[in-house]
This record gives sequence, structure tokens and C-alpha cells, in this order.
Amino acid sequence: MRIAIAGLGLIGGSLARILVNSGYDVTAWNHRSQSYEAARKNGIVCVKSLPELAASQPDILVLCTPLKAMDSVLKQLSDKLAPSTTLTDVGSVKREVLATVSRYGLRKQFVGAHPMAGNELAGFDASDVSLFDNATWAITVENDTEFEHFLKVARMVCDGVHNRFVVASADDHDQATAQISHMPHVVATALAAQIVRNPQSNLALALSAGSWRDMTRVALTTPDRTFAMVDENPDNVANLLHDISQQLSDIADLLDKRETERNIYDKGLEQFFESAQPYRDVRAKLKDKVPEGVYSLALSTSSHEWANQLVQASRKGGRIEFIDSVEAIVRHFPHLRDE
Amino acid sequence: MRIAIAGLGLIGGSLARILVNSGYDVTAWNHRSQSYEAARKNGIVCVKSLPELAASQPDILVLCTPLKAMDSVLKQLSDKLAPSTTLTDVGSVKREVLATVSRYGLRKQFVGAHPMAGNELAGFDASDVSLFDNATWAITVENDTEFEHFLKVARMVCDGVHNRFVVASADDHDQATAQISHMPHVVATALAAQIVRNPQSNLALALSAGSWRDMTRVALTTPDRTFAMVDENPDNVANLLHDISQQLSDIADLLDKRETERNIYDKGLEQFFESAQPYRDVRAKLKDKVPEGVYSLALSTSSHEWANQLVQASRKGGRIEFIDSVEAIVRHFPHLRDE
Repeated sequence: MRIAIAGLGLIGGSLARILVNSGYDVTAWNHRSQSYEAARKNGIVCVKSLPELAASQPDILVLCTPLKAMDSVLKQLSDKLAPSTTLTDVGSVKREVLATVSRYGLRKQFVGAHPMAGNELAGFDASDVSLFDNATWAITVENDTEFEHFLKVARMVCDGVHNRFVVASADDHDQATAQISHMPHVVATALAAQIVRNPQSNLALALSAGSWRDMTRVALTTPDRTFAMVDENPDNVANLLHDISQQLSDIADLLDKRETERNIYDKGLEQFFESAQPYRDVRAKLKDKVPEGVYSLALSTSSHEWANQLVQASRKGGRIEFIDSVEAIVRHFPHLRDE
Repeated sequence: MRIAIAGLGLIGGSLARILVNSGYDVTAWNHRSQSYEAARKNGIVCVKSLPELAASQPDILVLCTPLKAMDSVLKQLSDKLAPSTTLTDVGSVKREVLATVSRYGLRKQFVGAHPMAGNELAGFDASDVSLFDNATWAITVENDTEFEHFLKVARMVCDGVHNRFVVASADDHDQATAQISHMPHVVATALAAQIVRNPQSNLALALSAGSWRDMTRVALTTPDRTFAMVDENPDNVANLLHDISQQLSDIADLLDKRETERNIYDKGLEQFFESAQPYRDVRAKLKDKVPEGVYSLALSTSSHEWANQLVQASRKGGRIEFIDSVEAIVRHFPHLRDE
């Protein structure tokens, strides 16, 4: 397998090094060439331009540049990329990438991907061959995604990076990541901003311990990065923020009723704590590593049914750990909702 | 020093064992005697009743029972406790304890305390002599707190437990702990409840990583415990919830303006992220362990001025690590606000 990587930052650099270690031929381009010496020492072939990268005729080209550079990168690739080259990316939002890819006529060969891995560092110097250890990826499929292209990306994830993946549409992916990452970054920042305004801020900080530190850790992310998360997934983040704002306001209203309407207060708080119980239960199961099933899914690739099969398996708590042209091996994980 | 401990749970048990190790005489009572055998093996003298505990004429009696048991415990102690015995507690809210203590005529000898230590376990079996390692305590003072009683509690914290403390009124303490603990527990629970309701809940859970786990960790606390936190500090929690609900709603409104009012959107988000910058800065300083000053504070104990001195030192980011009848040694920590 010949892989081209556009962008040798933390994610692109780590991915390139892991794939080299798995025996893939990896060619890379970066917008600045200062990391090339270190990259070459790690067995990565480096080229000077994006057209040159496309001309290396890779099986897969992985876009690892920031989303805001995507337009310019795809513009330079659009008429250079062979139709047989699969185009993928590693961005944390998928709908906007899909739109940009479509604008440049590359949708037919595109399959989005998103490894749930990373840290607060940046750049090739921070790249780390263990960055993806035990990571789960999302691979996104649409109504017109071609199995041949999908399979190449999926095999790179399973065979090349030794990771598992789930399958979802770009829209569903962006809803899910808004929930578990983009929106919580805003909540953490709001908590941090609130302690700054608190008249007891110094006292509060002196008394703060692990729970407060955990809940505000991602507020320490550089504002540029958090702004980008929110700005790239605005509708989903806004919906979740409206929802949680309402829920917190309802609890505050209940607390205001403590003296005057004790029944409503007791019942309301009880329901609130109870509503989080499925989450407590699933986290307990995940912690206890309750035995999980593994099954083989025979893929219907004559029609587009394979995509539906993989999406449904993922929605039920399955993660795919092996795939070829006839079957997927799905491992069942504890999940929140039976579908 | 002779210490009496009422309640041999996680906190009371750990405190008792630490004080025994520091050479204090420790007598304890628990509402159930099943932990007495283990307690005795750890050098703790166990007695059968609260009147018997009071009769042991301790220098300090530490209330380590749950807040809801406080009324009954104080009722049994009220006419048995010598006026020279200092009464203190380890509860996570202070205003309500002070009210209960006052109701039983024990306010004159009471000084509230709150060690910022604990874990998700409970009971003497879970007690741990390292539970208080590096903990900061809050010691609460009011207009009528007597120095003699305050000093005994403060010395138990510094000399007996080898911890530092800050000084604040019960009201200020409860405002601060609502910020860094009680309100965040509600926010974490709301996040957990939200992922349960999310149509993409299984996908979101599959893709969740460290940031989501950290932000929902305290939602795994048993509902009884979180309910108690909120129920014991309702006004402060409600105020902070109203405030953060408004802030999150404002951000959601800004996101809704992204397409139509780009200037307001950009400026609003920029201000939001900027408003958390003092918190990012102070956390960076705390991480870098920037050199901190240490100074001696000569205490004015002829009037009540000593309390004001210690409260002001605490409000400025100081923590007291030694105290006697003439001076306090204050270590300066990075803080959020110059006062």
C-alpha cells in the first residue's frame, strides 16, 4: 500500500510513522519543509508540492492539514489526483470537509475518517507512534460512497494502524462529536470563566481539587483550537448548548423552590439524577470489562447495503476490528441504548 | 492533645489514624460498632456512646458524621461537652452546621473545618493514612470565633495532619465550594443525562475519549451524595447554575448568529474565550510551580483582628502552614485576582 500524507503535524506525522512501521510506503508533503529531515529519518519520503504528492499515485491520500487549509489544499489537488486514488482525511468534523471535497469534484473518491486520538501538543516534533494506541476511528459513508474506496481506508485503519472503527454518516458523526467533545469544551471554558468572575475566586481556587481540575482541563486548550471546533460544527454545538442551558436553568429553578414547594423540588431532583443512571451503568460495565460478543457480518457489496449494515452495527454498539471484501468482524461494546 | 472523633467513616477513620500516628490520643465513637475492632488495632480508643465521648474531656471533638445526622449528634452532646472542649467538624458545607451548632448552644466553642480530601469510597475499611496528603483545609471563622478554640483546630491541621489551611467565613466557604464542587457535580450530571437522550448516544459513547470521561467523572458519584451536596448548599448552587445557564445560552445564541451577524459572532466568541484567560494563566503558573513567597504574619490576638488578618491573607492567595499564639507562617500561591 502506498500512502500519501498531506500535512505532517501531530496527527499526520504520527500516522505516517505508524504506517511506515507497518510496512507501508509513505510519501508526505508539509506546507513548511522544516520537519522533512526528521521525517526522512523516520522512513517517510518527502516531496516539495501537492501536485508532486498527487503524482506519486498513492492508493490513499490522507488530508492531515487543518480544516481552514483544506480549501487551498484541495484546489491544488483537484485536477491532479488519479480517480483510483482514495481521498480521506483525519479532521474532527466531517460535513464541512465533505462539502469542500464535493466542490472540487473529488466526492466520488472521498471517504472521511476521524481517529479519536490526540493531545494538547502540535507539530511533527510532537508526533508519537503510540498516539493512536487503542484509538477508535469514525469512518464516514454517504449514500454514494463506493465500497472499493471505503475498504481501502478501513483496511488502513485496521491493518496499518491496528485500530477499530465505527461507521456513520458525516452528519451523525458531527452530532456525536459535538456531544462528546466540541460542546463540552465550551462548558469547561464557561466554568473557567465563571471562577474568574466569582467574588470568592482565590478561595475557590485554593480549595479546588481533582473534580474541578478534571472538569476544566479542556478549558486550558488554546482558544484558537476551541474556537475552530465550535466554528466548524456550529449548529450541533448550538443545539446542545441550548439544551443543556435549559436543563441547568430548570435545576436552578427547582433549587429556588426548595423551601416553598418541597414536593416538586424532591421529585424534580430525583428525576434529574435518575436520568443520568444509564450513563452510570454503561460506564460501570465499561470499567468492569464485561465480556463482549464478537461476530462476523457478511457484507452485501453488490448494492449499497454494506454501508447500511456497518452503520447499523455501529449504532448498536459494535466496533469493526477487521474487514475485507466479504466480511467485517464486529466486536460488541457496552452501549447506552438498544436500537 | 486528646482528640475525640464522632463518626469513623472514610474521613473520620482516616483522620483518626493520621492523628494516632502523630502521637495524639484519639478516642472515637461510631453509630455502628462493627468498625471498632479494626479501629482499636490502629490505636484508636472506641467508646459506646456520644455522652461517653464527651466525658473523655477531649481538647477537640471532631464531628465526622454526615450532615443529616448532625442534629441528633449535637443534641446528645449539647449538655455533656465541657466549655473548654473545642468543637469542630469536617463537613463540606459550613453555614448549616454553624446554624445547628448554634441551636444547641455550642457556638462559643465551635470552629468549622473542611479538609479538601476524599474519594468515592466510604466507611472505616476504606480509611487511608494518605487520604489527606497535601490537602488544603478551610477553617471557618465568624465575628465571635474565639482565638483559643481556633488555634487548637489550626494546630491539629498543621501539626497533626501536616496540611495547610485557608481561613474564611462559613458563607464565603460555601460560595467557594459551590463553585469548585457542588455546582460542577450538577453540570457533569447534566452532561451525562444529555448523552443518554442524544439520538447518537451509542456513536457518541464509542467516540468519547479522555476529555469527555474527565468531564463526566463526577456524574458517576452516587445520586444520594450529589443530592446531599446540592441540598445542603442550595442557594449558592442555584445562583451559579442560573449564571452558567445564561452564559451557555448566550454562546448558543451567538452560534445561531454565525451566518447572519458575523461581526457579533466573532467578537462575542473572542470575548468568551478571553474571559477564561486568567484561569489558563493561573493554572500554567500552578503547573510550573513558579516560586512562591513565604512570610510571617504577626497575629493581633488582643482583639478579633487576628481573624481578619488570616481571612485577608487567604483571600490574597495565602495558605497557612504553621501557626502559634503569636504568628502564622503564610505561603503565597498563584491566585486569580489581586485583592
